[in-house]
Amino acid sequence: MSQRWQDLVADKRRRQQESIPREWLIPIPPDTVLDVTAVPEQCGLLTAREVGITNTVDIGVLLHKLATAEWSAVEVTTAFYKRAIVAHQLVNCLTEIFVERALARAKELDEHLRTTGKVVGPLHGLPISLKDQLCMEGLETTMGYVSWIGKYADKNAVLVDILYECGAVPFVRTNVPQTLMWPETYNLIFGRTVNPANRSLTCGGSSGGEGALIHLKGSPLGVGSDIGGSIRIPALFNGLYSLRPSYGRMPYEGAVNSMYGQDSIPSVLGPLSNSLSGVKTFVQAVLNQSPWNKDPLCVRKKWDDEAYALSEHGGGKQLCFAILWNDGIVVPHPPIIRALEMTRDALLAAGHKVIDWKPIRYLELGNAISAIWKAGAAEDYQVTTASTGEPVISTMSILEGVGEPDSSVRPDPAGISAYALWQIQKARADLRKEYLDHWQKTAEVTGTGRPVDAIISPGAPFVATPHGRNNYTNYTKVLNALDYPAATFPVTKVNLDLDAKKPAHQFLSETDEATYNWYEPTLFQNAPVALQIIGRTLEDEAVIAMAEIVDAALKAKAKAAL
Amino acid sequence: MSQRWQDLVADKRRRQQESIPREWLIPIPPDTVLDVTAVPEQCGLLTAREVGITNTVDIGVLLHKLATAEWSAVEVTTAFYKRAIVAHQLVNCLTEIFVERALARAKELDEHLRTTGKVVGPLHGLPISLKDQLCMEGLETTMGYVSWIGKYADKNAVLVDILYECGAVPFVRTNVPQTLMWPETYNLIFGRTVNPANRSLTCGGSSGGEGALIHLKGSPLGVGSDIGGSIRIPALFNGLYSLRPSYGRMPYEGAVNSMYGQDSIPSVLGPLSNSLSGVKTFVQAVLNQSPWNKDPLCVRKKWDDEAYALSEHGGGKQLCFAILWNDGIVVPHPPIIRALEMTRDALLAAGHKVIDWKPIRYLELGNAISAIWKAGAAEDYQVTTASTGEPVISTMSILEGVGEPDSSVRPDPAGISAYALWQIQKARADLRKEYLDHWQKTAEVTGTGRPVDAIISPGAPFVATPHGRNNYTNYTKVLNALDYPAATFPVTKVNLDLDAKKPAHQFLSETDEATYNWYEPTLFQNAPVALQIIGRTLEDEAVIAMAEIVDAALKAKAKAAL
Repeated sequence: MSQRWQDLVADKRRRQQESIPREWLIPIPPDTVLDVTAVPEQCGLLTAREVGITNTVDIGVLLHKLATAEWSAVEVTTAFYKRAIVAHQLVNCLTEIFVERALARAKELDEHLRTTGKVVGPLHGLPISLKDQLCMEGLETTMGYVSWIGKYADKNAVLVDILYECGAVPFVRTNVPQTLMWPETYNLIFGRTVNPANRSLTCGGSSGGEGALIHLKGSPLGVGSDIGGSIRIPALFNGLYSLRPSYGRMPYEGAVNSMYGQDSIPSVLGPLSNSLSGVKTFVQAVLNQSPWNKDPLCVRKKWDDEAYALSEHGGGKQLCFAILWNDGIVVPHPPIIRALEMTRDALLAAGHKVIDWKPIRYLELGNAISAIWKAGAAEDYQVTTASTGEPVISTMSILEGVGEPDSSVRPDPAGISAYALWQIQKARADLRKEYLDHWQKTAEVTGTGRPVDAIISPGAPFVATPHGRNNYTNYTKVLNALDYPAATFPVTKVNLDLDAKKPAHQFLSETDEATYNWYEPTLFQNAPVALQIIGRTLEDEAVIAMAEIVDAALKAKAKAAL
Repeated sequence: MSQRWQDLVADKRRRQQESIPREWLIPIPPDTVLDVTAVPEQCGLLTAREVGITNTVDIGVLLHKLATAEWSAVEVTTAFYKRAIVAHQLVNCLTEIFVERALARAKELDEHLRTTGKVVGPLHGLPISLKDQLCMEGLETTMGYVSWIGKYADKNAVLVDILYECGAVPFVRTNVPQTLMWPETYNLIFGRTVNPANRSLTCGGSSGGEGALIHLKGSPLGVGSDIGGSIRIPALFNGLYSLRPSYGRMPYEGAVNSMYGQDSIPSVLGPLSNSLSGVKTFVQAVLNQSPWNKDPLCVRKKWDDEAYALSEHGGGKQLCFAILWNDGIVVPHPPIIRALEMTRDALLAAGHKVIDWKPIRYLELGNAISAIWKAGAAEDYQVTTASTGEPVISTMSILEGVGEPDSSVRPDPAGISAYALWQIQKARADLRKEYLDHWQKTAEVTGTGRPVDAIISPGAPFVATPHGRNNYTNYTKVLNALDYPAATFPVTKVNLDLDAKKPAHQFLSETDEATYNWYEPTLFQNAPVALQIIGRTLEDEAVIAMAEIVDAALKAKAKAAL
């Protein structure tokens, strides 16, 4: 192989740089400035009105102002685009930038509203950012693969078409790790995306560009994908709301991906936002477009108002939540435990019941999902990267700039037979049954006459880690193995006083001991602390509704404490 | 390997024989008597009242008489049990026979109704036959594998539990081919099941025991499974109503199967019956028990009354059906073409529209599904049969009695890698998208403003074939690849005058030519002729409703012709 892949990267990066309007370039704070969250409002690029628009985290409010033409689609798109470009300069979160196309779309929407008096759809004028998997006609989709530079899409992904039908303005695409199979965000084309609250920390992955961008309010709503935590980890590490929907709820058709044809643990698309209204609005809008008429893998199941009204959960009056304090393998760091305690107290104060969740089979579920991926992953990566000879990245640890990763070791290419894969898939199916029975059996102890309504769980044993240290994803991926929908919600921020290192506990595993040992609160200064709430397969609407209940309880408790 | 497997078979067959009440043995007509459909009513074992009960094909009527105690569960169970045992002596359709257990259950139900005045559930007192995959606590489940003789279930399959909750009386289990992956019914334990209308013909498979039993009205309702046509083929070959539901609609958990862990083309359970009311009643009853709380793979989707009312099909007022005359590979034999013509005429007479369906990608879809199975099937069969050394059957062609199959050749055990399997699965996903778009596009030509409402299609290019000749299953298995629900409905019987051999046509393939060449109407004397009606993924309720419309149209047309 020649060095050709580096040339492709240089050309792509040059083209990316040229796609940024020069007048939107700002002076960048030096790397020693870790927290850059205030920069977008302070850098002077956005007008006061644009700051006001982009600070409108309630998507319902934003859509109302767009629908009533109080704010035009053009000005909303411009405001978010400027803020996104600022964000990009601070944390390197974007891949494809296409200002003219987005503004032309916004203009059409304004024109439509002006001439007909009607919105195009339920997302009229809303800028939406898209993970770099969601193909748009005429744009490249590299997904972090050098070998995919120059791969221009001849049609939109189905979800993109649906967002257009809903009146949205897809306006940027966002960074990912090569292969998508990392919980941080780094690739050989666009480099590393970092956490806006503390740039020495990862933004998470694989939808890390989304996480960092929305953290800086550079997008009101973004679309990520999740096969083992890839929506939730960036949402957690950036303090965002998000949803990992059940398999087949959102249309994946036409999006690029790793490991095409791996049918057993499907990746799913889902929203990230600074508000739950963003999550709900997105899911409801997409489902009401009957995506199953465009994507054969979509479940024929409209947005279910009854499920959202918690008809199977006593109308939401008195719920019984269960808290997972740890997964039996790794005890979370102090900020996560504190967030669980805060959530428990808030729910009790709101009149709900809270019991402990007994984790079962986390190790086996985690091993099963990993084994399914590994069955053919290495070959998949090799085939994909073969055309340019780009290395398959083998670590997310810190590297200066873009270049060779610090190890050339590739994953074991041996793979396994189809029959051996079936045996793992069978074992995994049995684990799903065991877990379902475990959940059902809680009806004996909740006192509500129902099984536990939802589980409140860490999404990781830590908040955003230093680069290369996010090495334990079981808290999220177990739910992909179980196909349980899960929403994330922010709780607090790391507090050096409250989150001091605790005395050593009886370690549950080697990973537990290692995770305990490297904790030092100052490492995580300023990092958001968030959790996930988990429902049953295809209970997406109920999970959103219960996330709203938890969020309201936390906000009420915080207000009462003032 | 010793000859031990033959000893196991001999013992199992002796035990089966002993499970038949001696007083229910009848004189068996010689093999030269092909049509045995009149024997159950003429053999004298059933009383007139029992004949009346077992001839009640409308399940709604049967359930009403049971619920009002006009007929007791014990007498209904006894009547069907006697008829089932007669059927078994004629066509060899049963595996597990457990009269006492079924009658004890029926007695409990009668007691419950007598003391509470209420039925146990929507299937109160209804005897239901089960394919020999559906485990029942304390009974063996061999599924045609000698190696599984002596494998007693320690719990019921989830569906069996649900049927009990609904008040049903599981009362016999029915024969299958070894591995289930054959469209005829023969195994080394129980031998061959034959077609009651003409015992020189196959009853189809793999749910062939169900097909033959219900054909003889030895069961009012049976449960089969379908991974490539295994419900529909026996239903078609026996002139029955049936439904292959969409993936995950009916709970499969706890049933045994071949190729455990093959997640891409799931087998599905579904009903066979002599009436559509049987099909509807079963599906509705099971879905209303929320099977997703017992089977993690079940779709959380209750019976949908709106879908059944055809809310997305103009309320069923004027539907546009499309007829698949052939799949582009094999032109059906004359009886099938005649049935399609009869159905077309009946639908037109009932005021519906009928257009032609253009088949696309039948070859590729069929190849994809076969390749997915073959990825690990041979190893699966070998592992399963290894403990006794029983041969893996390699043909369904006629054999005298039970014994060695006519060839010891086993399928190629090589299999493929997990990565190679993913590539096939990806190709299959793309075909599903292409087919969906193809269907959606018909909205341009139907004149209803909707895409085609349902497809009327052959389920095979022939009616029940002589044993060993059912060698083309693409008409059914393509729908498993697409995950389209399909119901079967009877249309007519083979008629030697109307179904004469036609002049040769331009052959579409070698298989087409061969299929044409061996047609001779006298081979198929008396065979039922049935078709399938096909809807979209998860449109199960709508498919049942549209099958009712087609069935009513055919009956009205037949009545008008008198």
